Amino acid sequence: MLQNIRVVLVNTSHPGNIGGAARAMKNMGLSRLVLVQPKEFPAVDATARASGADDVLDNAQVVDSLEQALVGCSLVMGTSARERSIPWPLIDPRECGAKAVEHARGGEEIALVFGREHAGLTNEELQRCHFHVHIPSNPDFSSLNLAAAVQVLSYEVRMAWLAAEGAPSKVEKFEANSLRSNELATMDEMELFYEHLEKTLVDIGFLDPEKPKHLMPRLRRLYGRSAVNRSEMSILRGILTETQKVARGEPHKRKD
Amino acid sequence: MLQNIRVVLVNTSHPGNIGGAARAMKNMGLSRLVLVQPKEFPAVDATARASGADDVLDNAQVVDSLEQALVGCSLVMGTSARERSIPWPLIDPRECGAKAVEHARGGEEIALVFGREHAGLTNEELQRCHFHVHIPSNPDFSSLNLAAAVQVLSYEVRMAWLAAEGAPSKVEKFEANSLRSNELATMDEMELFYEHLEKTLVDIGFLDPEKPKHLMPRLRRLYGRSAVNRSEMSILRGILTETQKVARGEPHKRKD
Repeated sequence: MLQNIRVVLVNTSHPGNIGGAARAMKNMGLSRLVLVQPKEFPAVDATARASGADDVLDNAQVVDSLEQALVGCSLVMGTSARERSIPWPLIDPRECGAKAVEHARGGEEIALVFGREHAGLTNEELQRCHFHVHIPSNPDFSSLNLAAAVQVLSYEVRMAWLAAEGAPSKVEKFEANSLRSNELATMDEMELFYEHLEKTLVDIGFLDPEKPKHLMPRLRRLYGRSAVNRSEMSILRGILTETQKVARGEPHKRKD
Repeated sequence: MLQNIRVVLVNTSHPGNIGGAARAMKNMGLSRLVLVQPKEFPAVDATARASGADDVLDNAQVVDSLEQALVGCSLVMGTSARERSIPWPLIDPRECGAKAVEHARGGEEIALVFGREHAGLTNEELQRCHFHVHIPSNPDFSSLNLAAAVQVLSYEVRMAWLAAEGAPSKVEKFEANSLRSNELATMDEMELFYEHLEKTLVDIGFLDPEKPKHLMPRLRRLYGRSAVNRSEMSILRGILTETQKVARGEPHKRKD
């Protein structure tokens, strides 16, 4: 179950932090580490700070983009320290742990995403997340060390997992089954949908690519929090396809 | 109140861990650090890892014995990784945070005690504690980095403190604000939207009114659970209006 939860570190500068994160993960029973363009990896400092969590480092996947890191994920939660111009569903680490475990138990893939040491995640990266996780901290000194942030979230995942493992009730088993039969669309399916949506909005003249304003982020936020399942996704995609045909002036099935 | 809670590090070998602990403490709003016979302090590594929590290091008290570190304390909680021969009241970090805050609010002095990097606390030291705190961890890889352990307990103290202060957290403030400024669409607005959506789907030939299947109920379920707010509603209605224009063959703003 915990293997469905991956930790994604974006653009990490200090390999020591990668090692510290790997150790924190393994301590809490997590094993899947994905590194998006780390400055330096593998590295002696990473191995030293991992302090025996070598398997987590050895199996770490190194990728070129956050998009690749999120393939297959249906729930993405990214840490955020700053207030953003566009408000986003914001949760604390405890809720993050609970959500991760709830969805992972349903067989879904989950990503916990951590940004750069000094700059965090970009707005664009944050918009790919369903939820932003804010670790409560001293407002005058709010930036946690990267490995410490991984420690806090991994700890909350373990706490939620231990609570959930306490012999699943009949209700929980039922919910797990119903989650499976109504599987959520994955992140990559959602991305294809957003691309399709954006193109369609341009086709019908609703979105001006020169002045996109905040239209796509707002729509991402709306659909992102809706936990769209696969059958709904195919309806939404179908609507877009028909709309595009109409925009191209192709004959459509019905005319009034 | 949080100033009543001190962190005691016993016989720390690596000054980097002292710095990491100071940073974790300050991030979580704790400031009182007591060092029992540190191997090396002050130290460049400590300052580097503290990353700005210099005040915590500068004010750190260095003492010769655990006894001195605990002067004035009425509640002492020590971390313990191993099962001990003498069973002792064992709590998890969440209970530790709750107890620390409960007693600190009553004006008492509290100590959170952390042992050596490799050997932890001795039996004698553990017997000076009222409670042993066990951080739940992977049984095959259970030893947390010292600063990571300080991070977890300090985090739970902050969570308990925020709950006790009843001061709204950032998350709660965000939710309150976004509820106010982002009022949800009302039920009747939602009904107008569904009507508009249905007409548009007929216009583009996606919905056959003779054989509607379960299309509208499925879309109602999707948007119904999304808690659509007013600004999102006006975007959705705008998209439908443009789509209808296109379906009627009216010139739209952009053509490719």
